[in-house]
Parts: sequence; structure tokens; C-alpha cells
Amino acid sequence: MSELRYDALQKRWVIIASERQHRPQDFQSDQNIKRSEKECPFCPGREDQTPPEITAIRPDGSKPDTPGWRVRVTQNMYPALRLFDVEWELGAEGFYEAIPGYGIHEVIIEGPDHDRDFVDLPYELTVDILRIYRNRLGAHMEDLRLKYSLIFKNHGQTAGASLVHPHSQVIATPVTPRTIRMELMATLKHFAETDRCMICDMVERERSDKKRVIYDDGTIIAFTNYAGRFPFEMFVTSVRHETFFHRESDRTLQSLARCLKDILKRLSIALNDPPYNYILHSGPNPNAEPIFPGFWKTLEQDYHWHIEIIPRLVKTAGFEWGSGLHINPMPPERAAEFLREIEL
Amino acid sequence: MSELRYDALQKRWVIIASERQHRPQDFQSDQNIKRSEKECPFCPGREDQTPPEITAIRPDGSKPDTPGWRVRVTQNMYPALRLFDVEWELGAEGFYEAIPGYGIHEVIIEGPDHDRDFVDLPYELTVDILRIYRNRLGAHMEDLRLKYSLIFKNHGQTAGASLVHPHSQVIATPVTPRTIRMELMATLKHFAETDRCMICDMVERERSDKKRVIYDDGTIIAFTNYAGRFPFEMFVTSVRHETFFHRESDRTLQSLARCLKDILKRLSIALNDPPYNYILHSGPNPNAEPIFPGFWKTLEQDYHWHIEIIPRLVKTAGFEWGSGLHINPMPPERAAEFLREIEL
Repeated sequence: MSELRYDALQKRWVIIASERQHRPQDFQSDQNIKRSEKECPFCPGREDQTPPEITAIRPDGSKPDTPGWRVRVTQNMYPALRLFDVEWELGAEGFYEAIPGYGIHEVIIEGPDHDRDFVDLPYELTVDILRIYRNRLGAHMEDLRLKYSLIFKNHGQTAGASLVHPHSQVIATPVTPRTIRMELMATLKHFAETDRCMICDMVERERSDKKRVIYDDGTIIAFTNYAGRFPFEMFVTSVRHETFFHRESDRTLQSLARCLKDILKRLSIALNDPPYNYILHSGPNPNAEPIFPGFWKTLEQDYHWHIEIIPRLVKTAGFEWGSGLHINPMPPERAAEFLREIEL
Repeated sequence: MSELRYDALQKRWVIIASERQHRPQDFQSDQNIKRSEKECPFCPGREDQTPPEITAIRPDGSKPDTPGWRVRVTQNMYPALRLFDVEWELGAEGFYEAIPGYGIHEVIIEGPDHDRDFVDLPYELTVDILRIYRNRLGAHMEDLRLKYSLIFKNHGQTAGASLVHPHSQVIATPVTPRTIRMELMATLKHFAETDRCMICDMVERERSDKKRVIYDDGTIIAFTNYAGRFPFEMFVTSVRHETFFHRESDRTLQSLARCLKDILKRLSIALNDPPYNYILHSGPNPNAEPIFPGFWKTLEQDYHWHIEIIPRLVKTAGFEWGSGLHINPMPPERAAEFLREIEL
């Protein structure tokens, strides 16, 4: 079983995934496998090659683990965390504390087409994928042990994808990851001081400045981050305040699908299909038991879901890893201008 | 001029390096250049191809910017930050705040040999390199504007190196990078609660557990991190308490040189010369003006210099970038055992 260990010096958790254990020698060569369509476990007709279906969008009456699905969710074949039936006390505050690797690691297979990039999927399928995101985040919040559930996509080998078939992943953890905790602290402080949501204020500022905005249909807005770490880093969020992605309406998901297709297509044309990651930040589980010191229940007013899009165009070197201070060679205003000018 | 922008949501600074500005198209292809010895600007005899020498270890009486040096420091050819003569107020607390890109970006050329890896340098040269590290950190603390100075090495293309000739870099910033701030907060809290240095306590624990220790000569200890983010991540520090690297004795630097040569050689043999970064964390500038809210002068007792060594064996994907929660497939105890067993 894997375990979660706490780094008290850096105030962050790490998953030591011994189930994924490699021999030391295995790290010498590139582990990536780009499986062809002939042996892709995500292709229709090979449902028996993945763990059993957890949920899917498929024709009424069709059986799980048979073809016909539009979007399909299974456990990850090499899960970093698993659900199990054990009691433990979560009490890390000092150093050298660990808890068992309790959690969820799922894969969301984004359509039956092996070779069709996410950005080129039909609009209706993109909406269905976002509905599945909403469904998974909602489902994970029913487990009071799980503090946080994070959806992310790795597109391209440099971005960490090991299979070409379009897919995203979800990892739900019994702890709040550090990046989210930093954002929760910042937005809570902002709310306490101003009675306003910090991300709503960012949206207002972007709409007034205009120079970093790439997409704005009144429901969803996308802009390049004012202090983005990476060239062409983008921030996508709802214009109307909403803490939790799993409470969003179909109408918002439809706008979001249009926005993602629009901005990712611009990115793809501008930079020749670059590798990228996107990550969905939503409010933490409001039902979770406050078992870790420092946890608080999220107020409806203080957090606001958003998506970070990180093109992987530059290498991350020692300075960035060692300091958390990134050097971004592309001013965000210039990146936005360039993306806006792309003809779709 | 570049600028430092503050991300209030993530509570981190970023350098927007417009002097390094690329056309958007430039990101499409790999930017790395592995210059051959014939055109390497770091090789002896080509001193005119770098910015002027800032300091060097060279024979008495020999002139700067001429051959004969053992270690040579110049400004980075494409500095992310520069010194200049302007007044500004550092006052970022809200969002969308920026300050000019004031700072230092130097390169430390580690010996005249173009092709000799850091790990294979003669022991005396390694000690000289560490003396230069000490010298640069001390020199940068004379500028009261500079809060922090960070030395780091990128070895191998994956780790961000763009030139083969062995070298390290130093970046000094007018803000405290987030990673350091997190460590300062953790060690300050630990000291306030226990009257002890947290890193001294870590060392004590490692010496008693033994299973993660790779090197320990009584002066310098190296161990794999209990909650390391990356396979084979290592932590190197002085056994005796010392906040500031620039105050270390020659004797400690000699031990450190032996330790680095030992553990990096083990890593190189074990994993076939993998790419890696190392980063030196020392106490922040005790002379800096407290111009940023939340800054405090470091107590002599609460921080403790150390080196992080990060082999770059696995890709960093969306989950890690989006959450700060890393998945490490190699238990640190197993990594330490493997490195200990390597025959040198």
C-alpha cells in the first residue's frame, strides 16, 4: 500500500507510491509508452483491459464494460491511492508522520476515438466530459474522509501523458494539497478583509484591463495570468461566483466547453500542438471531517473554482524547483495578444 | 527591464523576464544548445565572450579575464535580474503588484575543463568551488535591497542545463522566494515551540533511524528525504548548527566537498549519470531592510543551511503542478539502501 508522508519543513504532503515501485535501474530509461490503437486499453471493445467501469455516459440500457459509451470512468490501472476499510488517526503536525495511502485515482476516457485530440472533439462530447467532471467531484465529496478531489489532464509526452487516447485523471486525497491550501488561505484572508471573493475581484480587474483576456462570453472568462509562471499560462473561471464546480449548471458547462475548445485550439495553432496540463481547482469537500489541524470548512463566499492551463514549453530548472520562484520569458499581455490574433 | 510580479492567490513572486523575450514562435522548438568545446564561452582563452569577471580563483598577480583561473564568476549572459540605480517602494500585498527586476544573476564556471563532470573534478577544485559559493553569498548580503541569494546547479539537458561546461548559477532577489519563506515559517514555529532548530532535530532523527543516511562523517550528513518529492531526492546539511552557509569554515567546506563527490558519484553510477539539480538554501540576508510586510530578521537559531539534490528521473505532470502534491514511486529508504550499496 502507498502512504502519504508529511514534510514538516516544506509543509506539504507527498505520496510514496510503493505499489508503483520500480527497481532503481528502471529510472535510467524513459518509461513512456505510446501504445498504438491496436493495443490501446482505452479503445472501445477493450473494456476488459481496464478496471471495471465506475460510471459512463452510454446509451440507455447498454451494459457497463461494453462498447457504445461516449465517456467512461474506471480506476486508474496503477492507482497512486486506493479506498480501503481501515481506521486511522490523521494527526501529522510534527515531522516524520505518515498516513496510509487512502484515496481515489480514476481515469476519465474522453470518447471512443483513439487519435482525436481533446481540442478537436465534437462540442457535445466536450460538454459530456465536463458533466462527468462534475459527477466525479460530487461523488467524491460523499466520502467524508476525502478532503479534496482534483481533476487534471496531461496532454503530450512532455506533460506526462503515457497514452495518446484522450483522457483526464482524478485524484482524491484525505489531505488538502499545499497549492490549494495556499489559495484557500489567500481567498479567506481577502474575504475577511474585504467581504468579497478574491477571484471575483480578479475577474473584474481582468475585464476592466482587457489586455490579458482571451475569451469572455459573459459566463466564462479566460485570461493569461498576471503573474503566470509559464509562457501562455491561462486561467479560466466562471464570471458568476461559484465555489464548487460540481454545483455548476449545464449552461455554464456549455460555455466552458466552448471556451476550452476556443482557447486550446488557439494554443494548438499558435504553438503547433504543444504539450500542456490543465488542472481544475474547486472548493474542498465541505462535508469532510475536520480531522487535520488547520482545516476549516469552506465558506460559500470565499473560494471560486477555476482551471489552470499550463503549456509545457520551457524546462523547469534548479532555480524554480529550489525557490518556487519561476522565470517566465513571455509577458502575459503579449501572450494574450498573440492568442487573440490567431484565426480559428 | 524584467519585473517581479506578485501572485496574491498563490502568494508567490514570479520574474517576468522581458529581456529574454522570445517571439511566440520560438517556443515551438527545443531551445537547448549544447555548444561544443570549439565554441564554448566558458573555456579558457574565451574570457572575452562572457561579461567581465566579477571574481575568480586564479594565480596571484594574473589579470582578470585572462586564462589561468580555477573558478571564475561572471554575470549571466542573459540575466533574469540586474542591478540598477532606481528608488522604488516594495509594497505588494494586494494583487497585481509589480516591482522592477532588481537583482543579481551570476554564473560560476567550475574549472577550465570543458568535458569533466562536476562529480569528477579534483577534490581541491571542488573545495574552491564551495569557497566561491561562500564568497558570493557573503558578497550579495552587502546589498540591503537583496533579501535572498540562491545558488543552484542544473546538470544535464533535462535538468535545464544549456551548456555542458560545468557551472552553477546564483540568483539574488529583492523578495524571499516562496519555498524559502515556507521553510522559514516552519523552522521559526518549531523554534518558538521547542527552543530547538528543526533541521538539527531532523539530523538527530536521521542519525538515530540510520535507514535513510548515505553519508555521515560527523561534520556533514546526507540522507534521502523522509517525504521526498522525487526518486533519490537527497538532503545534505551540516551536523553542527549553522544558519548561514557564508559563515561556514574551510573545514566544513572540505567535508562538504567529500560528501558531494561521494553521493553524486553514487548517483551517477547507480543511474547512469542522470540529470539533476542541486539547490543551496541558506539563511536570508540578515542585513536586508524590512521593506516587505511579513519579513523578519532571521534568528541565528531558527534556520540551518542545507542542499537539496533533485535527480530528474520522472516527468512532472498536471497533478503535481496543480496541487503541489508529488507522487514519488521510490521509497526513500530503498533509494538510500541502493545508493549505500554502490561501490565507489
